[in-house]
Amino acid sequence: MKLYTFFRSSAAFRVRIALNVKGVQYESIPKAFAKNEHRAAAYLALNPQGLIPALDDDGAVLSQSLAIIEYLDERFPSPPFLPVTPLDRARVRSMALAIACEIHPLNNLRVLNYLRGPLKQDDGGVNTWYRHWVTEGFRGLEQQARAYSVRQRFCYGDSLSLTDILLVPQMFNARRFDTDLSAFPTLVAISTHLESLPAFAAARPEVQPDAT
Amino acid sequence: MKLYTFFRSSAAFRVRIALNVKGVQYESIPKAFAKNEHRAAAYLALNPQGLIPALDDDGAVLSQSLAIIEYLDERFPSPPFLPVTPLDRARVRSMALAIACEIHPLNNLRVLNYLRGPLKQDDGGVNTWYRHWVTEGFRGLEQQARAYSVRQRFCYGDSLSLTDILLVPQMFNARRFDTDLSAFPTLVAISTHLESLPAFAAARPEVQPDAT
Repeated sequence: MKLYTFFRSSAAFRVRIALNVKGVQYESIPKAFAKNEHRAAAYLALNPQGLIPALDDDGAVLSQSLAIIEYLDERFPSPPFLPVTPLDRARVRSMALAIACEIHPLNNLRVLNYLRGPLKQDDGGVNTWYRHWVTEGFRGLEQQARAYSVRQRFCYGDSLSLTDILLVPQMFNARRFDTDLSAFPTLVAISTHLESLPAFAAARPEVQPDAT
Repeated sequence: MKLYTFFRSSAAFRVRIALNVKGVQYESIPKAFAKNEHRAAAYLALNPQGLIPALDDDGAVLSQSLAIIEYLDERFPSPPFLPVTPLDRARVRSMALAIACEIHPLNNLRVLNYLRGPLKQDDGGVNTWYRHWVTEGFRGLEQQARAYSVRQRFCYGDSLSLTDILLVPQMFNARRFDTDLSAFPTLVAISTHLESLPAFAAARPEVQPDAT
């Protein structure tokens, strides 16, 4: 498999974790946001959405990190990213989507660029925006993790799930923007545990081949 | 089942379509954004994320529209919302997520309120923002629909899928904000067909009990 990736992309970070957890070997093909390589014609022909990451599995190119992660889970069932019952699966997906739909989309690079450009926000305005949406999203997620995590090692029950794969990159970014995390002790404890696992550690931005 | 809903919520609109397609009877419990009913303690006890919609299935309350829709698909397999092979499923999910993660999160009410409030944007600034993200997201989705739709009746192949359920509410909102849709003829044709189906028509905002 080939992964079109960028070291600092939170969505690519998720897919790197998923590939590592499943033990799938892959080749990294870095695309630099700063050089707009993800909007070049050759990349758009592979991924019309023009976003990072994309996964090339023997010529079939897939986009959207959550779609890729569920694909990997269906292709390589062990260890599973989702529990067994529909109710448990829905709860895990709900927690993952609290990050994927409520926090990350508001805080990715192109949105921050729009704030700096057309909306003329300075660093202070951008940072306040960033922290606002992390705090809003983490508030509910903290409650859910407190209800569902068994030993503060994983977000749901006592084994790894889709939510864990999304939590670590979001926590990484929250820290990068100096977000106050004191109201989210459960999420911080879970993320700290997850970050110690080899599959997560090897997916970190700073150890990627394209890290600057 | 009970659906915590708001007539104009795009995410609730998706779940109403999904329930109708599966033929599941449900009771609507409207929560008005304008009165902040979705942030009242009683609702937060049910759904800590404090967002609309939530589905109560015999006392188990689920949140996040995509998680709810996949739950309904697992509980009531016919008609299916996803194709059979992992590759086809990933492509459908990718198209759905282009709406759920790239367009809608940037354009929902609380984000527009932040633009009007702290960022001091007038109607012009808000509308430009809105149309920008719809146009950005629809560009790639139009390419995917052109590649995968068979007769411009459904987004993927020639039968209903998850993507169709997300397209119609997004198209409804794009029109509400007078977005120029001339570059997206495939998406417009598919949405027009879908809107004619009874399950979609009955889920429209204007025919909900709480519509004003």
